[in-house]
Amino acid sequence: MTTPPSDALTFPASDREFLEPHLPPIPSPAPSTTTPTQNAEPTLPFTTLTFATSLDSSLALSPGTRTVLSGPQSKAMTHYLRSRHDAILIGVGTAIADDPGLNCRIAGVGGYGAAPGSLEGQPRPIIVDPSARWRITPQAKIVEMVRRGRGRAPWVLIAAGTEVDSEVRGVLEGVGGRFIPGRKEFDWRLVLEYLRREEGGRSIMIEGGAAVINSLLEPRFQGLVSSVIVTIAPTWLGRGGVVVCPPRRVEGGAVVPASRLTGVRWYPFGEDVVLCGRIRVDS
Amino acid sequence: MTTPPSDALTFPASDREFLEPHLPPIPSPAPSTTTPTQNAEPTLPFTTLTFATSLDSSLALSPGTRTVLSGPQSKAMTHYLRSRHDAILIGVGTAIADDPGLNCRIAGVGGYGAAPGSLEGQPRPIIVDPSARWRITPQAKIVEMVRRGRGRAPWVLIAAGTEVDSEVRGVLEGVGGRFIPGRKEFDWRLVLEYLRREEGGRSIMIEGGAAVINSLLEPRFQGLVSSVIVTIAPTWLGRGGVVVCPPRRVEGGAVVPASRLTGVRWYPFGEDVVLCGRIRVDS
Repeated sequence: MTTPPSDALTFPASDREFLEPHLPPIPSPAPSTTTPTQNAEPTLPFTTLTFATSLDSSLALSPGTRTVLSGPQSKAMTHYLRSRHDAILIGVGTAIADDPGLNCRIAGVGGYGAAPGSLEGQPRPIIVDPSARWRITPQAKIVEMVRRGRGRAPWVLIAAGTEVDSEVRGVLEGVGGRFIPGRKEFDWRLVLEYLRREEGGRSIMIEGGAAVINSLLEPRFQGLVSSVIVTIAPTWLGRGGVVVCPPRRVEGGAVVPASRLTGVRWYPFGEDVVLCGRIRVDS
Repeated sequence: MTTPPSDALTFPASDREFLEPHLPPIPSPAPSTTTPTQNAEPTLPFTTLTFATSLDSSLALSPGTRTVLSGPQSKAMTHYLRSRHDAILIGVGTAIADDPGLNCRIAGVGGYGAAPGSLEGQPRPIIVDPSARWRITPQAKIVEMVRRGRGRAPWVLIAAGTEVDSEVRGVLEGVGGRFIPGRKEFDWRLVLEYLRREEGGRSIMIEGGAAVINSLLEPRFQGLVSSVIVTIAPTWLGRGGVVVCPPRRVEGGAVVPASRLTGVRWYPFGEDVVLCGRIRVDS
């Protein structure tokens, strides 16, 4: 152990408790080995969909901007959640808008107090970017985190046959990152199955943005999300925001609710509330 | 006391407790007499803004439809809140879409177990309808409630000079209701001051719909709402819903949050959560 840097975050055990039933099992120290069991290996990772919205379901005041909605407690919670997953997945829009570090800053993980050189507890950043729009630069925060030993190199999921700019490829691969080509048509099930099967991703935290979230709330992707954790801040951002609102759902000619949660728990958390539950699967 | 009818609702004392700090003081039995005090009489009523939304801030699946979002507990809560206010106010859109009874069904109030003929605990329904669009009929639920001694006759706020159809006027006035003409331009402050000063309305519960709520969340009406009570159901209704989302707010060229709450408390309530707070007034 080394002394954690000054920007390390702490998340008290008393707060971890309420999240525990909604999280993947604590990973074994060596993610690449699997213990043979009598049960068949799951084909999908444990997937946690998590984000913070305003009361009017906005992630941000306007497209392309980053809006701080919730307090320092919520920030520490996000980083704790990251420490509990093998990977963090975001859409390219968020990568471009936020220039996120996508690492975990909880005191004690790799780069924040663990043994020098260790990346234990650091999730793998995954960016869904079918048409390779993200122009990662040497100055990107995510590259800086890798260089400073404070985060893993990102993987970028692109569609088959997509050309990648050689400069961009150089930056990504220069820090150990990868472009991973998939099918032409993006399919959540295939992507998640691939990450579980080929890359050993047993748990994935999906953080946004709105396009990713709204897509995963569609009925056709029911069963892919294991757990939903939403922080709601007591603020209305107003019209023109980037909203979480899945496509309208029609059944038998009638509009019905797009998506419901079950096994719901609400935890007041500072000025915010944290909602935990699972997406109800239609029988 | 008489035996409450079978559709009377109960709301347990244990649940009343968490709402108490967010409610107007319990009214004295005779609303028309005021006790002289050393303080000046307030010019505004205690105003509670209350509604139920989905996670995507929708009141209903589509305009003109009524969507049941929350469970029986929340229904009983709404009726308890009604018992604690002198009046309930809604917009004309909700009156037309929902055909609401706008009475209070808590066991023990007038029509639901109080002495025969008493309307104690029944709030005054007020419909904001500047251009007199509401065509109240003898079959309207609100009229039925009055006829059966289960609710007070409604008041309809119209703009000065608005013509009212004589048939509609006949129905409303036939059950003891009134059209109350105000100014040409609708102004929340003037309306609320009028209700307090001229009609003895010390406490008003504002229930919706979206147009009324979004208007009252605008910065120019800050200070008019005393308390906000929002029930949130763990459901996304999807696009095309009737949303609570105030107008965008711009300050110094930058978009800023439209409205924030302060003194916030969250109360898990069945599958839902109840959010109580006050609108933060800019200094």
